[in-house]
Amino acid sequence: MQVSARIEQALDAALASGESPGHPPKLATAMRHAVFPGGARIRPQLCLAVAKACGDDDEDLSTAAAAAIELLHCASLVHDDLPCFDDAALRRGKASVHCAYGERLAVLSGDALIVLAFQTLVHGAGRSPQRLAPLLNTLTAGIGMPFGIAAGQAWECEPQAVLRDYHRAKTGALFAATTIAGAQAAGRDSRPWQALGEWLGEAYQVADDIRDAAATQQALGKPVGRDLALGRPSITRERGLREALLHFDRLVGKAKQAVPSCPGESALRHLVQLESERLVPKTMAEELVASAA
Amino acid sequence: MQVSARIEQALDAALASGESPGHPPKLATAMRHAVFPGGARIRPQLCLAVAKACGDDDEDLSTAAAAAIELLHCASLVHDDLPCFDDAALRRGKASVHCAYGERLAVLSGDALIVLAFQTLVHGAGRSPQRLAPLLNTLTAGIGMPFGIAAGQAWECEPQAVLRDYHRAKTGALFAATTIAGAQAAGRDSRPWQALGEWLGEAYQVADDIRDAAATQQALGKPVGRDLALGRPSITRERGLREALLHFDRLVGKAKQAVPSCPGESALRHLVQLESERLVPKTMAEELVASAA
Repeated sequence: MQVSARIEQALDAALASGESPGHPPKLATAMRHAVFPGGARIRPQLCLAVAKACGDDDEDLSTAAAAAIELLHCASLVHDDLPCFDDAALRRGKASVHCAYGERLAVLSGDALIVLAFQTLVHGAGRSPQRLAPLLNTLTAGIGMPFGIAAGQAWECEPQAVLRDYHRAKTGALFAATTIAGAQAAGRDSRPWQALGEWLGEAYQVADDIRDAAATQQALGKPVGRDLALGRPSITRERGLREALLHFDRLVGKAKQAVPSCPGESALRHLVQLESERLVPKTMAEELVASAA
Repeated sequence: MQVSARIEQALDAALASGESPGHPPKLATAMRHAVFPGGARIRPQLCLAVAKACGDDDEDLSTAAAAAIELLHCASLVHDDLPCFDDAALRRGKASVHCAYGERLAVLSGDALIVLAFQTLVHGAGRSPQRLAPLLNTLTAGIGMPFGIAAGQAWECEPQAVLRDYHRAKTGALFAATTIAGAQAAGRDSRPWQALGEWLGEAYQVADDIRDAAATQQALGKPVGRDLALGRPSITRERGLREALLHFDRLVGKAKQAVPSCPGESALRHLVQLESERLVPKTMAEELVASAA
């Protein structure tokens, strides 16, 4: 099965597991709204690519880990879009969950998606129960305290935040969890894989800042200019667009270098390159440099 | 160590695990505000009582399970108090989390407490890794979809809800998870323990409805009359106070009968009795019956 089909099928099965007769229907619908149709699914793609490079001897588990990571990511987007945070009306080109279903169901969708991520992981660990604890440690670190996504969002509530700490928690932590989990799901030493996730996460956040400052709402499918409007730490605000673009290229380079020596090495580097071009298309970068000149 | 000290110490250690240097301080403070000082800690007390009745051969794990359940409970209270739900200014006699720290940190506290619950559980499972998966299934079922707390709260967003389904999900599910987890943490068959948790959960929710309709804000430490004000399903509204009190007594009786035959049997029945008197004190019941006559 194609990797992308494997991911979509696993996400669908995860959501279906919460839809037994007698469940509250609106919450189930709101959760599906948060997960489908997806964005680039870069985290589960990356997780499965790393698992494959590590032998991927338990596809049920690697697929479950990939789906769990995507569910955590979707949960964080739903809560991040809430009126008290970004107050974003759009996400992936359609109404955000709180706009479509109200704030209460948006709060509950996020909660239930976090829980569903762990339900999905444990369900997938039947053949390799000894890999469950390390994977849980990895995923909870990616989303919780002290350095996961929730911590990253909490830095927005502090009077002062170091940009790199903020980025690392808000975006880097789940990317690092993604590459680590890919190796753990395949039963391999995860340490060589951490740096790849960290560099990619940092690159991703810089790209997000660049896109927030430069792209149009239509191209992104979500509101732009939010960092500036909300006074959030942002590399484009701190150092300007041109420097942000150079920094992005450096980070993508670091990510490529961080791919450990393995059979899937070149495929992984290719994935990083493709993803970097998707994040900051060459045409966008050229236009930005021209207009900043 | 006294059971209550064991619970408080475990909760403190769990929170401390998220407070490594470099964490966002306000979120950590808000999470502590949500957990300390506690209420009656009835769920972790019950979990440990069941574990004890089952031999409690791994106290690290039973303590972790008990703390995890309390963290999930606290998370649900924080989100339930949010302006979009109960809009409650008070909880346990002090400001609710969103009143003390703002809505954003209240949303994040709930999220991070859910994650911390699973971090705590996995951390405590070092000596009995084979018990981790069943415990995770139990705890996630108690809080997630289709029948856990989030599902219960979601029934408040539906145009129609069956009172018993609503109660079972909103309160019963985590009580059932509590007794099941107590047995699982001790490595025993959990099936005989499920009914005790279910009856207790139902009794607890009926008591909550009675207290909401009858008690004063001072005695409860949280706003009263909320069910009526918010048009929520409530047994006192559906059947009146007198019938609710009789129903509560019946449920407590069922819970006591459901205690399986075991060495700690009479201690467990005693705990159920004490808890029922704490929930609906005799004087309150007598006053209510007199004033309703």
